[in-house]
Amino acid sequence: MTDFFHRHQKLLDDAVSALKSRQFWTPFPEIPSGRFYGETAREDGQRDFDRLIGQSFEIADHPESHRVGLEESPWGMPLQITYPAADATTLIDASQKAQKVWGDVSPEMRVGILLETLVRLNGMSFLMGHAVMHVTGQAFPMAFQAGGPHSQDRGLEAVAAAWAEMNMTVRDALWEKPQGKHPSIIMEKRWKFLPRGLALTIGCNTFPNWNGYPGLFASLATGNCVIVKPHPAAILPLALTVKVLREVLAEAGSPADAVLLATDEPGQEITRELVLSGAFSLIDYTGSSVFGNWVRANAGAAQIFTEESGVNSITIIGTDDFKGMCDNIAFSLSLYSGQMCTSPQNIYIPRAGIETDQGKKSFDEVAAAIARAIDDLLCDPDHASGVCGTIANPATLARVAIAHSSGRVIRESGETGKGRSATPLLLALDADEVGVEQEECFGPISYFIPCIDAADAIARASGIATKKGAITAALYASDKAVIEAAAESFGHAGVNLSVNLTGNIYVNQSAAFSDFHVTGANPSGNACLTDSAFVAPRFRRVMVRWPKVA
Amino acid sequence: MTDFFHRHQKLLDDAVSALKSRQFWTPFPEIPSGRFYGETAREDGQRDFDRLIGQSFEIADHPESHRVGLEESPWGMPLQITYPAADATTLIDASQKAQKVWGDVSPEMRVGILLETLVRLNGMSFLMGHAVMHVTGQAFPMAFQAGGPHSQDRGLEAVAAAWAEMNMTVRDALWEKPQGKHPSIIMEKRWKFLPRGLALTIGCNTFPNWNGYPGLFASLATGNCVIVKPHPAAILPLALTVKVLREVLAEAGSPADAVLLATDEPGQEITRELVLSGAFSLIDYTGSSVFGNWVRANAGAAQIFTEESGVNSITIIGTDDFKGMCDNIAFSLSLYSGQMCTSPQNIYIPRAGIETDQGKKSFDEVAAAIARAIDDLLCDPDHASGVCGTIANPATLARVAIAHSSGRVIRESGETGKGRSATPLLLALDADEVGVEQEECFGPISYFIPCIDAADAIARASGIATKKGAITAALYASDKAVIEAAAESFGHAGVNLSVNLTGNIYVNQSAAFSDFHVTGANPSGNACLTDSAFVAPRFRRVMVRWPKVA
Repeated sequence: MTDFFHRHQKLLDDAVSALKSRQFWTPFPEIPSGRFYGETAREDGQRDFDRLIGQSFEIADHPESHRVGLEESPWGMPLQITYPAADATTLIDASQKAQKVWGDVSPEMRVGILLETLVRLNGMSFLMGHAVMHVTGQAFPMAFQAGGPHSQDRGLEAVAAAWAEMNMTVRDALWEKPQGKHPSIIMEKRWKFLPRGLALTIGCNTFPNWNGYPGLFASLATGNCVIVKPHPAAILPLALTVKVLREVLAEAGSPADAVLLATDEPGQEITRELVLSGAFSLIDYTGSSVFGNWVRANAGAAQIFTEESGVNSITIIGTDDFKGMCDNIAFSLSLYSGQMCTSPQNIYIPRAGIETDQGKKSFDEVAAAIARAIDDLLCDPDHASGVCGTIANPATLARVAIAHSSGRVIRESGETGKGRSATPLLLALDADEVGVEQEECFGPISYFIPCIDAADAIARASGIATKKGAITAALYASDKAVIEAAAESFGHAGVNLSVNLTGNIYVNQSAAFSDFHVTGANPSGNACLTDSAFVAPRFRRVMVRWPKVA
Repeated sequence: MTDFFHRHQKLLDDAVSALKSRQFWTPFPEIPSGRFYGETAREDGQRDFDRLIGQSFEIADHPESHRVGLEESPWGMPLQITYPAADATTLIDASQKAQKVWGDVSPEMRVGILLETLVRLNGMSFLMGHAVMHVTGQAFPMAFQAGGPHSQDRGLEAVAAAWAEMNMTVRDALWEKPQGKHPSIIMEKRWKFLPRGLALTIGCNTFPNWNGYPGLFASLATGNCVIVKPHPAAILPLALTVKVLREVLAEAGSPADAVLLATDEPGQEITRELVLSGAFSLIDYTGSSVFGNWVRANAGAAQIFTEESGVNSITIIGTDDFKGMCDNIAFSLSLYSGQMCTSPQNIYIPRAGIETDQGKKSFDEVAAAIARAIDDLLCDPDHASGVCGTIANPATLARVAIAHSSGRVIRESGETGKGRSATPLLLALDADEVGVEQEECFGPISYFIPCIDAADAIARASGIATKKGAITAALYASDKAVIEAAAESFGHAGVNLSVNLTGNIYVNQSAAFSDFHVTGANPSGNACLTDSAFVAPRFRRVMVRWPKVA
C-alpha cells in the first residue's frame, strides 16, 4: 500500500508552518499555464471536460437508485450530465457503515489520503476550471483559480489545521507523580482520537469547491465520514472531487463510502430530509441566512459551521491616489458581477465629498469616477466577459431589474455579450431612500450612500456589519488617526478591513494560509477559515491509563 | 503598574509545555503542609476563616442592592455569612460596561492578571480549604486539595490553553506575493483578538472551584467578562475567588467588574433570569442534565460548555491482586461518599465469577470482599470521616434511603459520627431488577450487576456510558486481549478508562495537565478540560491589512 503520508509529509509540514506565520505560501500555482501544469494540460483539461458533456458521470461503487442532473451553463452551453442518486436513508446507511471503519483509520493514513487527493485535484485544475466555469458562470481564469488551486489551498489549510490540532498534545505519556520518600506513582497513558460523527457539507452555487473543501477536508481528516450535498445547479466540481477522493480512499484500503455524493434537482432537493434525519454530528453550510436559520432550528445537536449572507462595504474618506482607488473599486465591483461573498455592496462617502490627490471631489464626482472606471474596465467585450463572467442564478437578474428603481442611477447595468450577463448597477441613495441598502442584494448591485462625515460613514459601515454581517470591508483614507479609529470600529464589528487598496490586490480576495475568511464575530457566519475553532470540535480524545509495571 | 505577565512568564511557559507533554506537572503543592505553604499557613488559614463566620463578606465596589446568604455546613457548623447581591439587570449592565474595556486589554495583561490571581489564591489554600470543606461537606484534606491547588491547576491549565490558542498564529505578518517579472505585492497585516462576549459560569454545590475555574479563567483570558453564579449552598469559595480576581484587576488598572458575583438563596435562584436575559455569549455549566437541558433550550445563541450527569462504572473480569483491587475500589466508592462526578456507580461482574491471584471468586464473593474492604477502610471513625466527609445535599440522604430497597443489600450505609454523613450503600441486582442502575444515583450508592460473561460486562458498562454518559470507567482484567477489546469499547463510548488500579491512585482522580476531564463524546458533557475546543470558540480574530508603502 502506498505510504501517502510520508510522500506528502513535507507539504504538510510547510502548510502547518504557513498557518502560523500567515506569510504568502501556496504549493498550487494559480496561473493557468502549461509552465506549471505541463505542456498539454490546457488541451487535456478541455478534452476531459468535453468528454463529460451529455454523459453519465460514473463514480465507482457509489450508491445509486436512479440518475439526476439538470445543471445548465449560464454561458449557454448544454451540459446534460447525469449523476448517481440515492435517497437520504441509503446514503446515511452507507455513511454510517463506513464510519465504523474510517474513525479507526490512523490520523496519518487519513491525512495522507487527503494530501494525495489534493495533489491529484491540482493536476486536474484545467478540467476543474471548465467544470466550475460552466456551473457557476465564472470566466475561465477565475474558475480555474477559485475552483482549482485556491480551493486546493483551502482544503490543504483545513487538513493542516486539523493535523496541527491533533498534534497539540502527545498520544502517549508516562506520568510520574512523586510521593515524597515513597516510590513514585507511574502511570502509562494512551490517547485515541474519536471522530464526532457523520458530517454533511451543503454546497453553494457560486463557489462549490472553495466553500465546500474546508469542511469536507477538515471532517475527513478528523475521522468523520462526509456526505457532500452540492447545490443542484453546481454538482460537477464536487462530483469530480468526490470521485477522486473515493479513488484514493479505495487505493489506500479505506472505505470509499467515507465520502458520498447526495445529488438532487432544483425543486426536489433532499437537503431538508438529510438535516431532519438527525444522523449528522457536523454540518457545514454555505448559503443564505434564511436557509441557515432553518438548518440551525432543525439540526438537533449537530455542530453547525456556516457562511451566510452579509452586507460588505467600502468607506471612502479620502485618498492619495484617486485614479488607483477608482480602478481598484471598479474591478472589485465588476469581478464575477458581485456574486462573491466578499463583493462590496454599500459605498459610504461623506456627502460633502473627499480630499484627493486630484483635489476635492464631491460625492457625485466620486460616484461618477467609479462608474467611469467600470466603463473603462469593461469597454472591450471580451475583457468585460472575462472579468464579469455570467450570472449564475436567473433570480439575480431579476434582483438587478427590481433594484434599478431603488435609487438614483449612477451607472446602468449592461450585458457583456456573452452568456447570461449583467455588469454593475450603481445607485446613489438620498437620505429618504435609506433602507434598501440594509439588506444583502446579492449580485452586481451597489449603493452610494451619503454620510454626514467621516465618523458617520465609519459608524454606518461598521454598524451594518454588526447588524447584518459582513465578510469584508474596505476603507480609503489618508489620515492615520481616521484609519486607526476605523480599524477599531470594524474590529469591534468583527469584519476584516482592507485599507487603501490600489493596484493588483482587491478587497474580494482572501488568501489561504494568511487571511482568515469569515471572523465568526458577526452574522455572516461562524466558519472561520481556518482557525482552531473550525477543526477542534470535529474530534475528541479518549484515554486509557494503567499503572506502569516495574 | 506591576508587570504581572513578565513576573509569571516562566510559570506560563512551563504550563504550556505540560499541556503538550501530558507528564506530571504542577506548580501548586497538593500537601497541606507548612513545608510548602509557610510555617504559620495552617493557623493563618484557620484564623482567616474564623473571621468570616457570621460576618458580611465584603467585595470592594461590587454592585449591591441587598444581602443574601443561607449557606449551611453539612459538618454542623453555622456559617451565617452574607454576600452582596444585585438583580440580574444590574449585574449584566455592569458586566457590559466592563466588557467595553476588558476586551481591549492586551492578552499579555489579561493573562498576567490571571496568573497573579492564581498565585495569590494558592497562598490562601488553607483558608480556601476551610471554605470548601464547609460548603461542600468534604473532609479538610480533600477540600484543601480539590478547592485549592487542584482547582488552581485547572485554572492555570485553562489560562495556558487560552494563551497557546491565542499564539497559534502570529499577530502581525508581511505577506509578499510574487508577480513573476513584476514587483511583488506586499501587504502588511495585523490581527486583533475579539472576545465572544459576556460569559456566565454556573457553579455546582460539590466542587465550586474545581468545576468553576476552567470556564471562568478561560473566558477572562480571552477577553470575555464573566458573571459567576455560585450554587446558593456553595458561595464562599467562589466569593473568595472573585474578590481576589477583582483586587488584582483593580491593581492592574483594569475594570474590577470584568468579574462579578451573582448570589442568591435556595428557592430564589436567579440563574434562569440570567440565562433568559440573552445577554450571554458563553455559558459554562456544571450540574444535572435536567437543568442542563433547560439551559440548552433557553440560552439562545450562547456557546454552552457543560459537565452533566453520568453513570460511571467498574468492570471486573479478573485480577492478579485481589486484595489491592478491593482496597482500591473501596476507597473510590467511599471518597466523599460517592459525590464526585468521577465516582463509580455500577460494578459489572460476570455472574460465574472471576479468576484472581486468590483463586476463583464468585460474584457474591467479589461483592462481599469489596464490602469488607470498605468496612476495614472505615472502621476508625476519624478516618471514616476523613475519607467520606459529609453529605452536601440532604436530598442525597433521601436517595440512599430509597435506593435501599432497589436491590439485595451487600453493605448497609452507615454514619461516620461526624456531620450529615452516609457511608457507601452496596446493592446487588438480579436479572429482573435491572433498570435502577440505568440512571445516575448521585451519592454513596453502588450496584453490583451480574453479567453473562466478560464481553457482556464490557458491553453493558460501555453501553451505559454511550447512553447516559460517563466521565470515568475502571476495568480489572489480566488478559491483554480482553483489555484491548475493552479499551476499544470504552473508547467508542467516549469514556476514559483506568485499568487495574491498585495502590494510591484512583479512578476518581483526574490530574490537570495530563488527564483530559470529560471527553465531550458522550452525554456527560462537552466541556473537555482542557482541550482547544474548550478555549478556541471563546474568541475570534479580526484583521486589518494594507499595502506596504515602499
